[in-house]
Amino acid sequence: MTTHTICATATAPGGAIGIIRISGPQAIQHADSVFRNAKSNISLLDAEGYTVHYGRIVSPHDNQTIDDVLVTVFHAPHSYTGEDSVEISCHGSAYIMHTIIQLLINAGCTPAEPGEYTKRAYLNGKLDLTQAEAVADLIASQNEAQHKVAMQQMRGKVSMRLKELRDKLLHITSLLELELDFSEEDVEFADRQQLLTLSREIKAEIERLSKSFATGNAIKNGIPVAIIGAPNVGKSTLLNTLLDDDRAIVSDIQGTTRDIIEDTVTINGILFRFIDTAGIRHTTDTIEQLGIERSRNAASAADIIILLNEPGVPFADITPQPHQHIIKITNKTPEFQAINGIGIDHLRQQLLDAAPKAQASTVLITNIRHKQALDKALIDIQRTEEALVMSVSGDLVAEDLRQCIAHLSSIIGGSISADDVLGNIFQHFCIGK
Amino acid sequence: MTTHTICATATAPGGAIGIIRISGPQAIQHADSVFRNAKSNISLLDAEGYTVHYGRIVSPHDNQTIDDVLVTVFHAPHSYTGEDSVEISCHGSAYIMHTIIQLLINAGCTPAEPGEYTKRAYLNGKLDLTQAEAVADLIASQNEAQHKVAMQQMRGKVSMRLKELRDKLLHITSLLELELDFSEEDVEFADRQQLLTLSREIKAEIERLSKSFATGNAIKNGIPVAIIGAPNVGKSTLLNTLLDDDRAIVSDIQGTTRDIIEDTVTINGILFRFIDTAGIRHTTDTIEQLGIERSRNAASAADIIILLNEPGVPFADITPQPHQHIIKITNKTPEFQAINGIGIDHLRQQLLDAAPKAQASTVLITNIRHKQALDKALIDIQRTEEALVMSVSGDLVAEDLRQCIAHLSSIIGGSISADDVLGNIFQHFCIGK
Repeated sequence: MTTHTICATATAPGGAIGIIRISGPQAIQHADSVFRNAKSNISLLDAEGYTVHYGRIVSPHDNQTIDDVLVTVFHAPHSYTGEDSVEISCHGSAYIMHTIIQLLINAGCTPAEPGEYTKRAYLNGKLDLTQAEAVADLIASQNEAQHKVAMQQMRGKVSMRLKELRDKLLHITSLLELELDFSEEDVEFADRQQLLTLSREIKAEIERLSKSFATGNAIKNGIPVAIIGAPNVGKSTLLNTLLDDDRAIVSDIQGTTRDIIEDTVTINGILFRFIDTAGIRHTTDTIEQLGIERSRNAASAADIIILLNEPGVPFADITPQPHQHIIKITNKTPEFQAINGIGIDHLRQQLLDAAPKAQASTVLITNIRHKQALDKALIDIQRTEEALVMSVSGDLVAEDLRQCIAHLSSIIGGSISADDVLGNIFQHFCIGK
Repeated sequence: MTTHTICATATAPGGAIGIIRISGPQAIQHADSVFRNAKSNISLLDAEGYTVHYGRIVSPHDNQTIDDVLVTVFHAPHSYTGEDSVEISCHGSAYIMHTIIQLLINAGCTPAEPGEYTKRAYLNGKLDLTQAEAVADLIASQNEAQHKVAMQQMRGKVSMRLKELRDKLLHITSLLELELDFSEEDVEFADRQQLLTLSREIKAEIERLSKSFATGNAIKNGIPVAIIGAPNVGKSTLLNTLLDDDRAIVSDIQGTTRDIIEDTVTINGILFRFIDTAGIRHTTDTIEQLGIERSRNAASAADIIILLNEPGVPFADITPQPHQHIIKITNKTPEFQAINGIGIDHLRQQLLDAAPKAQASTVLITNIRHKQALDKALIDIQRTEEALVMSVSGDLVAEDLRQCIAHLSSIIGGSISADDVLGNIFQHFCIGK
C-alpha cells in the first residue's frame, strides 16, 4: 500500500501535447489544488472516473495561468496503477511541463522514479511481472516482430504458459505430499511411472521455453548477421546499400531516430543486426591477420553469415556451426551488384528465409531474467526426474519440485518477489511509465 | 466547413505515452472502426463527450491487437478544433503510433498538415488569428518570459487591445459617414478637433504597440548581447562560464535539449542571446582588422554590450547607440575572474537590470506579421491625422480610416483573411497541433 502520491511527465518533450501523470491517494486532491475548471466551479474531487475536464492550471501563490489543459480523472481501482490517478494534457512546451510538475511537487506530490507507475500497477495486482516487463518492451518496440512478442507477453501469454506448468508441478507435489502423510500405511497415491512421464513432459516444455530465448532475443535485439569476404569484394558497399534502403523506409516513420540502431535493418518487420560493422568499414585499415581474426569472431557470433566474393576470388573458408545459415553471394556480376542495388531484393528474401521462424502461436521468451529462472527450474526438474528414476523418497522429490515451482513463480512475480528484484526490473523503465 | 477527417500524432516519439488526434466529421466513426471497448460492446458513436474509454486498437483485417489504449471522445463544437474529435492515448512506441495512424488512414482519415488542428480551430471560430499564432509560441516557450507573452496573447490580450482600437476607429468613421449622408444640409456631426484628438490617441497607441515588438521579440528570441574586448582578455572564457552554468540548470528540465539554443542563457526566466559567438570563440584565428570589424558589427546589433578588459588593457572604444546598455567588466581581478566564476552572479544581475522591462499589464507584440500590419496601420492613421489638420473632405478621411481598420483587422483575422495568409501562418506549426 503506497502512501505518497507521485507525478511525472509521461511524454517526450517537443510535441504539440504533453501528458503529466499523477497517481496515489492524494492524486485528485493535488491536481484539484492547481486546476480551475473553465465551465463551472465543480471540483475534480466530485468528478466521476473516466471523465475529462477543460480548464486552466493556475499557480496558487500568484494566480498566474500556466496553461489551458484537459484533465482526466480515474478512481481506484479503475486506473493503470490501480490507484486514484489524474492525467493532465497540456501544451508540449518543456517550460510548461516543468512548471506544472513543480506546482504539483509544491502541492505535495513526489517526483516518480523510473517505472514507478508500472511498479505500482504490479504491486496493486493490475499486471504480473512478465506483463509489467512487457510494457517497457512495448514502448521500445520498433518493428512488427518486436511489437508482436511484447504484445503477446503483455497480454499474459507467457504467464499463462508458466502458470499451466506450475499447476502441473503443484499437482505432482500434492500427490507426493499426500503419500507422505500416509507413509506409515505404505499407500502409494502417486504412480511413480506416471509422475516420471509428467515430469518429463514438463521438462521438455521448460527446455523449449528456455531455448525460445534465442529466437525471442533475436527478435528483440535483431538477428545477428555477419558479412565475410576478402578485402575489396564489396562488403562495406553491400552493408551501406542495405542500411541506406532501410533508412529511406524508416524515415517515413515520423521522428524515428536511426542513431541508436545504426547498423540494423528491418525487412518485412524483422530486425537484422549486422555485427562487427566497424571491421567491415575499416577493412583496408586493418592488418591482414587482424582482419581474418575479426571475421572469424564475427562469424562465430552470427546466426546468418553472408559469404561475399567476386569473380576470380574464392569464398572465405568458414566452417559453419549447426544453427548457422550461410548465404553465398558473388558481387560484381550481372545478377548482383551491391553498389547499384542489383540483386538486393533477392538477398533480402534470402535473409528473411534464413531468419528463425516464430510461429504465431508459439510463446517466446525475450527476457534474460526469464531465461535464467527457466534454466534454474530446468535443473530442478532434471533432479526431480533423476530422483523419480532412482526411487528416491517422496519428501526429497517434493523439495526439488517446490524449488522448481519457486523459480517459475519468480518469473510471474507475486508474494515471493524481493524488493531488490523489483528495483532491478523497474529501474530500466523510463520515467512516467 | 471541412469535409475530411484528419489524424496525426500529437506527441514527440520516445515517451511512455503517445497521443494520436483525430478531428473532422467522421472522427468518431473512424476511431470506432479500429477500437474494441474492453468492458462492453458500447460503440464510441454512443459515447458522451468528454468521456474516456479503455480498450484495444485492433487491426480490422487480421484482428491483431496493436495496443491497449484510452480513447477520449469530443463532440462538436465542444473540442479544440470545434469539430467531432477523438484522442487516442497509446504506448509511446514509434512503431505502435505509426501503425495506428496507418489503420486510421485505411479507415478513411487524411494525415494532418502542420498546424491543421489549430487552423481548423481558427476557421471554426474557437480562436482568432493572434491566439492561434500564440499556440505555436506557447509550445516553443522555453522560459518564464516567453511563456508569459505567449500566454497573454493566447488568452486574447493582444486581440482585445486591437479590437478596442478598431472600435474607436469605427466610431470616427461612422461619424464621418453620417456627416456625408447629410452633406447637403451642411451639418457637421463630427467635431474635427475632437476627431483629431481621438486619432492622435489612436496613433500613439498603435505606435506603442509597434515599438513593443523590440521588447516582445527580445523576449521571444532572446535579448541580444555582445561581448567586446581585446584578444585574450577572456571573452571566450566568460561566454563559456555563462553557458555552462545555464546548461547545468537547464538540464534539470527533463529532456531539454541545448543544441538548438546553443548560445543563449536564461537568467531568472529572461532569455539572453549572445551574438557573434563564433567571433568570440575564434578571436585568435582572425586577422586583427577582421576581428575589429566583427566586434563592431556584433556591437551594433546588440541591446546590451559587455565591454571586457583586464588590468593594463583599455576597454574597446565603442560609441553606444541610445537604446544600448553598456556593462563594463575588468577580468582577472580579485572581484571578477571569468574562469573561476567569481563575480558572475553580479554580472548576471547587471544583465537582468539592463534587460528591457515588460510591465505585467503591458501588451507586447512578438510577431513580425503583427508588427508589419501595425506599421501599415500607422501610415494610414498618420494620413488621417494630416487630412483632418488640412480639413480634407470627410469621404477621403473615411477611406484612410477604413484602410487603417483593415490592417488592424488582418492581425486578428476574420472574413478578410486570404488563404495564402493562413497557409503562411500555419505551415510553421508542428504536425499534430
